[in-house]
Amino acid sequence: MKILITAFDPFGGDKVNPALEAVKLMKDTIAGAQIVKLEIPTVFNKSIDLVVKTIDEVHPDVVLNVGQAGGRFEVTPERVAINVDDARIKDNEGNQPIDQPIAKDGAPAYFATLPVKAMVQAIKEVELPSSLSNSAGTFVCNHIMYGTLHHIAKNHLNIRAGFIHVPFIPEQVVGRPAPAPSLSTADIVRALEAAVQAIVEHTEDIVAVGGKTE
Amino acid sequence: MKILITAFDPFGGDKVNPALEAVKLMKDTIAGAQIVKLEIPTVFNKSIDLVVKTIDEVHPDVVLNVGQAGGRFEVTPERVAINVDDARIKDNEGNQPIDQPIAKDGAPAYFATLPVKAMVQAIKEVELPSSLSNSAGTFVCNHIMYGTLHHIAKNHLNIRAGFIHVPFIPEQVVGRPAPAPSLSTADIVRALEAAVQAIVEHTEDIVAVGGKTE
Amino acid sequence: MKILITAFDPFGGDKVNPALEAVKLMKDTIAGAQIVKLEIPTVFNKSIDLVVKTIDEVHPDVVLNVGQAGGRFEVTPERVAINVDDARIKDNEGNQPIDQPIAKDGAPAYFATLPVKAMVQAIKEVELPSSLSNSAGTFVCNHIMYGTLHHIAKNHLNIRAGFIHVPFIPEQVVGRPAPAPSLSTADIVRALEAAVQAIVEHTEDIVAVGGKTE
Amino acid sequence: MKILITAFDPFGGDKVNPALEAVKLMKDTIAGAQIVKLEIPTVFNKSIDLVVKTIDEVHPDVVLNVGQAGGRFEVTPERVAINVDDARIKDNEGNQPIDQPIAKDGAPAYFATLPVKAMVQAIKEVELPSSLSNSAGTFVCNHIMYGTLHHIAKNHLNIRAGFIHVPFIPEQVVGRPAPAPSLSTADIVRALEAAVQAIVEHTEDIVAVGGKTE
Repeated sequence: MKILITAFDPFGGDKVNPALEAVKLMKDTIAGAQIVKLEIPTVFNKSIDLVVKTIDEVHPDVVLNVGQAGGRFEVTPERVAINVDDARIKDNEGNQPIDQPIAKDGAPAYFATLPVKAMVQAIKEVELPSSLSNSAGTFVCNHIMYGTLHHIAKNHLNIRAGFIHVPFIPEQVVGRPAPAPSLSTADIVRALEAAVQAIVEHTEDIVAVGGKTE
Repeated sequence: MKILITAFDPFGGDKVNPALEAVKLMKDTIAGAQIVKLEIPTVFNKSIDLVVKTIDEVHPDVVLNVGQAGGRFEVTPERVAINVDDARIKDNEGNQPIDQPIAKDGAPAYFATLPVKAMVQAIKEVELPSSLSNSAGTFVCNHIMYGTLHHIAKNHLNIRAGFIHVPFIPEQVVGRPAPAPSLSTADIVRALEAAVQAIVEHTEDIVAVGGKTE
Repeated sequence: MKILITAFDPFGGDKVNPALEAVKLMKDTIAGAQIVKLEIPTVFNKSIDLVVKTIDEVHPDVVLNVGQAGGRFEVTPERVAINVDDARIKDNEGNQPIDQPIAKDGAPAYFATLPVKAMVQAIKEVELPSSLSNSAGTFVCNHIMYGTLHHIAKNHLNIRAGFIHVPFIPEQVVGRPAPAPSLSTADIVRALEAAVQAIVEHTEDIVAVGGKTE
Repeated sequence: MKILITAFDPFGGDKVNPALEAVKLMKDTIAGAQIVKLEIPTVFNKSIDLVVKTIDEVHPDVVLNVGQAGGRFEVTPERVAINVDDARIKDNEGNQPIDQPIAKDGAPAYFATLPVKAMVQAIKEVELPSSLSNSAGTFVCNHIMYGTLHHIAKNHLNIRAGFIHVPFIPEQVVGRPAPAPSLSTADIVRALEAAVQAIVEHTEDIVAVGGKTE
């Protein structure tokens, strides 16, 4: 099995992106699966173009996009991506789309085709905090998750795909207004490796309580 | 214009539902629009059945569902409903669906057809906290929003619809573990009335920054 | 019984101070006690001078200082004031003392001589959130509580005294970064009146669990 | 220089105490100072007795007590300890004092005699989150800080002393209700070692903004 793992570069004034720092440190083989790593720009459309191009070159079985969710204290696989770009801040090339569809011909949303609850469970089993998120926001993270799943759906590719949000690392929260939770890079690496192992081991998701009331 | 406003009954151990308390106190006419109020049960499917039946009887121009979001400190119009029931707790009749589609023939998601950013702006203009939410959860709130929009879409009805989440009221947070923000019933009423006025005045949404990074 | 209730004017960029807004609206007689209200400046030393002068004029049996605690969601009587001024921001006349004693001849701390747990209980009984706080900070709130208790102690006055912190009101949190809990002015008034009634009824505090682990 | 560092054993249902886990892993010599480590029981009075006995045996120049502050996301040196035991939960031997003085002949409070702002600065310089706390609570942490400083004051010992609170470690927050921030054991060790280095290097505290408004 070949797994393409992408991570965004730093944005929004931060000097590092914990997703990128952690992905760089992940093992190259996990549970027998070959890991291919890709840094992508925090830029609307360009990021999707690069992932699509790399999918065509690498022919992965799985695409896992990883991004930063400042303010969260858990590692959170995402359940769903929605067909909208609505940027609160500019991306790294100054784009700030407001309420624009990502794909005019796209579905209103795509659900992750990864075993998201098995991934949450696997992260907890290595004693790190995790829960299933129902929103990847409306910035580049939702954008890349939607764009990847849309590309796969439109072209009937046999690829499973999804997204994981990771917290800040401690160096990013020094001096930030409270509350500013973080997780160490080493722990984020462990969480991501546990999630990838769950992806390898579970072609179907487990049945487990993990919804949110609101 | 006729606006059907629904609110759930209490659930999850609470003695009141702030949505219901507030909707009861709303004016019967707002910005010239007639307000029709409906209490609905915190029960999967039954709640949708009652809303559908009432839509057929009342022929509203707008359906606004209102529900409780314990833990939020703002009044939050919802952008989108997704096609999944995934209950963390049982509903008021003991149902607890896990990862089930709401409608097998339904779209993966429906976007609110209300002017959600104009609603946020209107609530802020009456000096109450508000932001646009990108997830209504996976319990009955997302369920009723999805079910209403699906019914309207499937039957090509000329009805706009959407959902607003409201915080706890103070009496609900006495003794709850921190942080437990709340808003008074009177303020929730003012927020909902401001949002309804925005619905009456805006057939198209405004263009405004209001996305979330994650 | 005569109760002097003081409240600070707005500071730190806010246009209102919820303590002052609420105190203005309090009844003039509570549980038979006469309420005397005093607005004080958010200024080191000047605020104490005005309270001391007013104590000398009014001869109250109780002094209750009230101030804003932005970020808290509960109404919080304070247990103790410590002998230090350490300002994170400038006061309303530009003073910013760093790690200075309030009174060179003063005790390291004074405990409130009000029935703080009975006050917490009374606020909860009117269904508003409350807990006992163990720190009034190191800005003007701690300063006025310390200064008042030090004046009373040094002069052996037969006056009970203490401090209550109140949350933001909703208009202050519109547009503030999350989490920004608030309580309505009307609810803050109810909380303060309940606390004052407890002060009148309890010359000794009740025995109740109400400490904090950290 | 000899520095006695104490840490409590686990309490309140937790299987580990991050303070203890981290102290065990600290270097035995920091900036030339010899580190003596002591595990103490989460028990009122017994904990003080053990620290006092060890002070008499070891003759340290500095005593630094370390404890867990679940819910905090920063490493927080404490400014002050107050003369009260007020337990929200039972200690490890079932004691639950309510509003009792720690020392009947003691001062109302003792300020830490460590360079607390230099310690905060040193922790931030190793890129970990830190701020100065103004309350150590009213459980065993405040108790040991007060008891240590009272013993030193009463006996005119030439020992500097104080307390640091550390967050949960990740394994403790798996499954805890949100928000449940944590810091890795390795990062807590780094923070504590940075703080100890500041203690060695600063006999007087630095002048820096670091107060809290409330």
